[in-house]
Amino acid sequence: MTKVRQIDLPDAPPTATTPVQRLGDGAALNVELAQETAIAISYDGTTQAVLMASPADLVDFAYGFSLTEGIADPAEIDAVTPETVEHGIDLRIWLKRTASERFIGRRRRMVGPVGCGLCGVETLAAAMRPLPHVTGDCVITTDDLDMALAAMEGGQRLRDATGASHAAGFLLPGRGLVALREDVGRHNALDKLAGAMLRGEDAGRIGQGAVVMTSRISVDLVQKSVLMGAAALIALSAPTQAAVTAAQAAGLGLAGRARSSARAEIYAHPQRFGL
Amino acid sequence: MTKVRQIDLPDAPPTATTPVQRLGDGAALNVELAQETAIAISYDGTTQAVLMASPADLVDFAYGFSLTEGIADPAEIDAVTPETVEHGIDLRIWLKRTASERFIGRRRRMVGPVGCGLCGVETLAAAMRPLPHVTGDCVITTDDLDMALAAMEGGQRLRDATGASHAAGFLLPGRGLVALREDVGRHNALDKLAGAMLRGEDAGRIGQGAVVMTSRISVDLVQKSVLMGAAALIALSAPTQAAVTAAQAAGLGLAGRARSSARAEIYAHPQRFGL
Repeated sequence: MTKVRQIDLPDAPPTATTPVQRLGDGAALNVELAQETAIAISYDGTTQAVLMASPADLVDFAYGFSLTEGIADPAEIDAVTPETVEHGIDLRIWLKRTASERFIGRRRRMVGPVGCGLCGVETLAAAMRPLPHVTGDCVITTDDLDMALAAMEGGQRLRDATGASHAAGFLLPGRGLVALREDVGRHNALDKLAGAMLRGEDAGRIGQGAVVMTSRISVDLVQKSVLMGAAALIALSAPTQAAVTAAQAAGLGLAGRARSSARAEIYAHPQRFGL
Repeated sequence: MTKVRQIDLPDAPPTATTPVQRLGDGAALNVELAQETAIAISYDGTTQAVLMASPADLVDFAYGFSLTEGIADPAEIDAVTPETVEHGIDLRIWLKRTASERFIGRRRRMVGPVGCGLCGVETLAAAMRPLPHVTGDCVITTDDLDMALAAMEGGQRLRDATGASHAAGFLLPGRGLVALREDVGRHNALDKLAGAMLRGEDAGRIGQGAVVMTSRISVDLVQKSVLMGAAALIALSAPTQAAVTAAQAAGLGLAGRARSSARAEIYAHPQRFGL
């Protein structure tokens, strides 16, 4: 018997039923809304960031955020313990010793006793640091792309229920869409996808595939895709100029306006798409 | 002769022409992409935030961000001097003395010598601080709403050119849409709109009107609308549950899925919409 491989879908992110009035006729309705929760991401007990996100797939989120923000590789994470606290969720990440020492050292350099101590010029130079060059490669056919787009369309349970979320999927050529994650924020969806891939059976194949996003593409999604190790990024909507420049420089294949393979536009490294 | 009042539209945000290949037939095309620039927002020479944004309407952005992030009222800003630097734009904001001392004092309390010094529980409590209660009021008719939606549709030059931006507009009942700003980020579009209103001739009427957004509504857009002083927030897409809870608590009228007045759903304070 052939094992049928399934897409790695998460538990459906939580929704809440809310009564509303329709303006046109005053009708009372019940609608489903996406939950959105304040999540503090802390390393060894010190908070690094507070984000609003869908309260689901938090261990994936911890692994993905740590890698795509350049804080820790999966092998450097000792444990992840999400704790529900009064005003949200404290997503506690515990690092192995070398990563922990590096993290503390970097914080000490970045944060002075009053303010960050950096002027805008210095901060911008730090924020726009060059990306590593993509080492993976792939050739995505139009069939690969159309199958992945259909799987994305069929796999967005939070979007179907609420209409207020984005999704990130991972496409392996010849295999189709192998994972999908949703979130009220597009950056979070990509971080959760990265964590799901890093922790899954295809962790060694990230360099052979592409991230697929339902959103437009700003430069930070290019940065996260490169740091995740993907060979290409495909989006349903358009990229910014800065995203295109970053993808060209880093070696990331970039396709946008990809509501179908026929309409998709290739902005960087067309050889990844067989052109 | 009657003076015809026009919508306060900004200069069109900059775009860049980029060559692309269409995947379906390999055709070579030129497309317009939205520019996206790293912008450091600094107060009295110390950077508060680095954001990716459309490089336009930067003085509006400075005034709006300062108010909606709780840093300074317009009257507390001495000068705004955007400087183009190597990796982006340093948006330099100079505060009057009392605001400057308050800003330095708050930074000293928040930032310790190593890391932020706060655990996740303390950070979340600080991030989810209660909002002031809305003091303004308005009644938005279905005609007001449909006229504003039509004006939003007609006023998005960056979206028309690039398909990769969001817009925020301001609706005054009986007057229609009085201002509109666009940005590659929806939070930036709202901050630029806030600054345009604070600096314009209708600054005293913000409490009598509503923000109109092309996006979905996360809780931070509710927070910014309240701190801007608006009486209501209307969005083309759906809100999250947290956004609804925050709007109900703060007294902000909230309408979503408002692609037309007939389909709009009212989530908070229906009296603002005549229900």
